[in-house]
Amino acid sequence: MADWIAVDWGTSNLRIWTMRGETVLDERRGPEGMGSLTPDDYERVLLGHIGDRLPPGRVTPVLVCGMAGARTGWREAPYRAVPCQPAGPGAIPVPTADPRLDVRILPGLSQARPADVMRGEETQIAGFLASRPGFDGVLCLPGTHTKWVQISAGEVVSFRTFMTGELFALLSAQSVLRLSVAPEGLDPQAFREAVSDSISRPEALASALFSLRAGQLLQGSDPVAVRSRLSGLLIGLELAGARPWWLGAQVVIVGSPGVSQPYVQALAAQGLNAEVVSGDSMVLSGLCAAYEGGTA
Amino acid sequence: MADWIAVDWGTSNLRIWTMRGETVLDERRGPEGMGSLTPDDYERVLLGHIGDRLPPGRVTPVLVCGMAGARTGWREAPYRAVPCQPAGPGAIPVPTADPRLDVRILPGLSQARPADVMRGEETQIAGFLASRPGFDGVLCLPGTHTKWVQISAGEVVSFRTFMTGELFALLSAQSVLRLSVAPEGLDPQAFREAVSDSISRPEALASALFSLRAGQLLQGSDPVAVRSRLSGLLIGLELAGARPWWLGAQVVIVGSPGVSQPYVQALAAQGLNAEVVSGDSMVLSGLCAAYEGGTA
Repeated sequence: MADWIAVDWGTSNLRIWTMRGETVLDERRGPEGMGSLTPDDYERVLLGHIGDRLPPGRVTPVLVCGMAGARTGWREAPYRAVPCQPAGPGAIPVPTADPRLDVRILPGLSQARPADVMRGEETQIAGFLASRPGFDGVLCLPGTHTKWVQISAGEVVSFRTFMTGELFALLSAQSVLRLSVAPEGLDPQAFREAVSDSISRPEALASALFSLRAGQLLQGSDPVAVRSRLSGLLIGLELAGARPWWLGAQVVIVGSPGVSQPYVQALAAQGLNAEVVSGDSMVLSGLCAAYEGGTA
Repeated sequence: MADWIAVDWGTSNLRIWTMRGETVLDERRGPEGMGSLTPDDYERVLLGHIGDRLPPGRVTPVLVCGMAGARTGWREAPYRAVPCQPAGPGAIPVPTADPRLDVRILPGLSQARPADVMRGEETQIAGFLASRPGFDGVLCLPGTHTKWVQISAGEVVSFRTFMTGELFALLSAQSVLRLSVAPEGLDPQAFREAVSDSISRPEALASALFSLRAGQLLQGSDPVAVRSRLSGLLIGLELAGARPWWLGAQVVIVGSPGVSQPYVQALAAQGLNAEVVSGDSMVLSGLCAAYEGGTA
């Protein structure tokens, strides 16, 4: 039977692991992300996934990270201000109707200047540091809101979020560029050239974007090349802005191969060989570390 | 009775003027923009607006500019390559079922390198030059896709489009920032500071955007200030990229007060006093010039 339940509850989906110590008994995924739920929905959704795994007659701890702790989530979990360890105290208990549940939501991290926040990534970072306790360098967590994170002495020193993934999603699906962008595929040369263009002229972004559409109208650009160039312009802009984070640093990219590879290629073109580790396993490692550390 | 019909058929709406020479007999506006129509819809929509104004028993010229001439519009009108006069030959006839109609769509302008296109703005430019034939300088036509246009000797020498307006619309309504942005209002100081931030650090755009959200979560930023800062960051990025167009130039902004004023303020903060003229009347002046010039 389960000792405890680990949950990564994001904006657009959730993952639930039924755990005995550090052993995964069962893993489930669901589409019920924070973005589609009201506070009253969470307990029902959770029980729908793992109600049959809860031992009767006793209370099972449920440890949650991610956007379920946002103001618009299940219950707001406060932010912990950096510099601090990525896993720490401050998990908030969430009242439930079912007496078998003892739900706690882990806090996110905040930074006052420049204003920045994270929810969920701090648990991935804790998972990474559990396996690399002496790491001193920079983590890049690519995604909808890519994070660059300075780690030293086991603490998150500072971090910065770039809306690169969300800009790509909006521009490729909702803007005038949607008519010119292939749904998938990567042209490595078009991507690298666009990265280089944005790094050398970040101020040209808004006109370079429109040129993608015009080039397709006038010269019939290949939609895969347009998609690659769009991705390259946005990642290049981010690398230009994040230069202080990666220049001369030891960089580890924490993410799935699909989102990590463009960053690897873009950094390689700047002469930086980044290490890549799977983000998938890091969040569970971080939840385990929080459970064992009693920080919840 | 009407001599001819002038039409500005854009992506999201259309304006129709019933004309006798240069005199407006009647003006109508409709929501039936190119974006919501198939080619078969246009004649019916046009007749719905002005069918009752067409003299019986003879053919009335209908002169159309704008996105009705796009590939996805009524019928594709070719682009004319710059440098060239903004109004010129190449209007294409559109077959109609109603024998009272003689519809022609004015061509847009194109530029090979950097790849760029316009449809509709060339007619506004022609209207501007009809009243200022000797103008030598730069026009800025702010909007969803803002155009910067170099004019000399009556010709469009070159131009550049910035997706600033579309980025603002997407980010304020569809991104995570929608939760923090007021639906209207302008805080001049927040706007000016953001313009200055983007001009000095255009590469920071994607992180400055996320800071708007984080600042609201952490410090409860005023939604009007967030909206103003979002607008300022994007217009500042554009001014950084468009610097060769406006620096030391005579700049005239052609547009409605609502879209022109932020550009006026942003340029003024850079020490440039731009002149503003109403874009509303320019497109009709341009259609008149095309009608009288027989370019249709």
